[in-house]
Amino acid sequence: MNHSTTRRNVLRGTAATAALAAAAARIEAAYAAPHGGGTGPNIGILLYDGYSLLDPTGPAEVLSRLPDATVTMIAEKRGAVRTDTGDVAVVAERSIAEVDRLDVLLVPGAGNRGTIGAMNNEALLRWIRRMHRHTQWTTSVCTGSIVLAAAGLLDGREATTYWASADYLQSTFNVTYLPQRYVRSGKIITAAGVSAGVDMALYLVSLIADDDTAKAIQLAVEYDPHPPFDSGNASDASPELKQRALQLLAASQI
Amino acid sequence: MNHSTTRRNVLRGTAATAALAAAAARIEAAYAAPHGGGTGPNIGILLYDGYSLLDPTGPAEVLSRLPDATVTMIAEKRGAVRTDTGDVAVVAERSIAEVDRLDVLLVPGAGNRGTIGAMNNEALLRWIRRMHRHTQWTTSVCTGSIVLAAAGLLDGREATTYWASADYLQSTFNVTYLPQRYVRSGKIITAAGVSAGVDMALYLVSLIADDDTAKAIQLAVEYDPHPPFDSGNASDASPELKQRALQLLAASQI
Repeated sequence: MNHSTTRRNVLRGTAATAALAAAAARIEAAYAAPHGGGTGPNIGILLYDGYSLLDPTGPAEVLSRLPDATVTMIAEKRGAVRTDTGDVAVVAERSIAEVDRLDVLLVPGAGNRGTIGAMNNEALLRWIRRMHRHTQWTTSVCTGSIVLAAAGLLDGREATTYWASADYLQSTFNVTYLPQRYVRSGKIITAAGVSAGVDMALYLVSLIADDDTAKAIQLAVEYDPHPPFDSGNASDASPELKQRALQLLAASQI
Repeated sequence: MNHSTTRRNVLRGTAATAALAAAAARIEAAYAAPHGGGTGPNIGILLYDGYSLLDPTGPAEVLSRLPDATVTMIAEKRGAVRTDTGDVAVVAERSIAEVDRLDVLLVPGAGNRGTIGAMNNEALLRWIRRMHRHTQWTTSVCTGSIVLAAAGLLDGREATTYWASADYLQSTFNVTYLPQRYVRSGKIITAAGVSAGVDMALYLVSLIADDDTAKAIQLAVEYDPHPPFDSGNASDASPELKQRALQLLAASQI
């Protein structure tokens, strides 16, 4: 090992760009401040027991690159919140009681247990409704749209959700399901399942900032997707593949 | 709100498939057991200060759906480990001292500070080398390949990394950079930046299980990517866009 790491930058040009970026950040903070408080957008992501890990973390990765953005993981109580598999926990830095206003609210999806838990949690639903009154954007990923619907926010609207939950969403609420990667209805944006949150977050960046910023963030996270297979769209999937997908999900969840 | 949630399933067919899945899991555990211990693969993801959130969480989402898989977040010490932005923390459930063997090791990438920190952490590098002796697959996302290289695992190999770190990887180590989404070299698989970990994880599922399982997991996480822009490939990006991407990254990191 003959690498000298103390004097080098792993990312080409980082030293130079850091100075530029700091200057740019000061300028943006001074002039733009479109999201209140003189800084960038205040983005809150709601965690609840049994969420799917990528639902909050994919958008968080993208949205955290917005100039001066603050991304806060929020839950009913502060502390570690476990995913649907029970294996992984992300820390909620704030409780819902500590958060009065958000520029952007994101509600992730969950497995069956987690989604139903959130739908039946009146304290969470009340907080979602309260945040929504003042948000610039209220968003969801996967079955998070079902939680938004349970909070009464999607009445009469078009929305998307996890492919296997589309019938449930339409039959339970006054919502028109659209099989799209994300759906905007007024200031509400719903994304399809799990990984669709990344696409939605880039769209959201283009709305909050501009297309050039969204394109730069896409490059920053090297989002040039090339999955080894082309099996992610439920409308092209065989009944057997759908069944196998739901089996694997169910078996992985606690 | 007239939804009745206690008797319904949000995901169509979940109740039926759960029983099937449990039976299938028992059969697989009894017959297959290719990864030791009579259960599925033991997958460890190394967290270290300053990692990029999506690097570990994207693959964790995918790999956690492998039948009977255990995904464990591991760090030098147990507890919350913060990302490059400082906003978000994932819990390390085990310390490196508590983990002797892994079927799959995944090393995520980080910003400049985090990557250099990991490269200079001899305890981490020793542990990576020790795990690698017995892994079935040793993998990385983004600048995680630079950490693998610092541990001496990539000598004379082909690998990929974050686009802005390719020159550093090649000039510092005896490694040939390939501008691919992921690169396999023996039992080592390196992925490109951040979001490439999701593509790599699906490929890894196809190697550990089979193509049909990978396709089903891709559907399970609805990975049918449709970003609103097509700017994620550095080889197509203008110098201005690259500069802007690195500015946004640097400004978001602590």
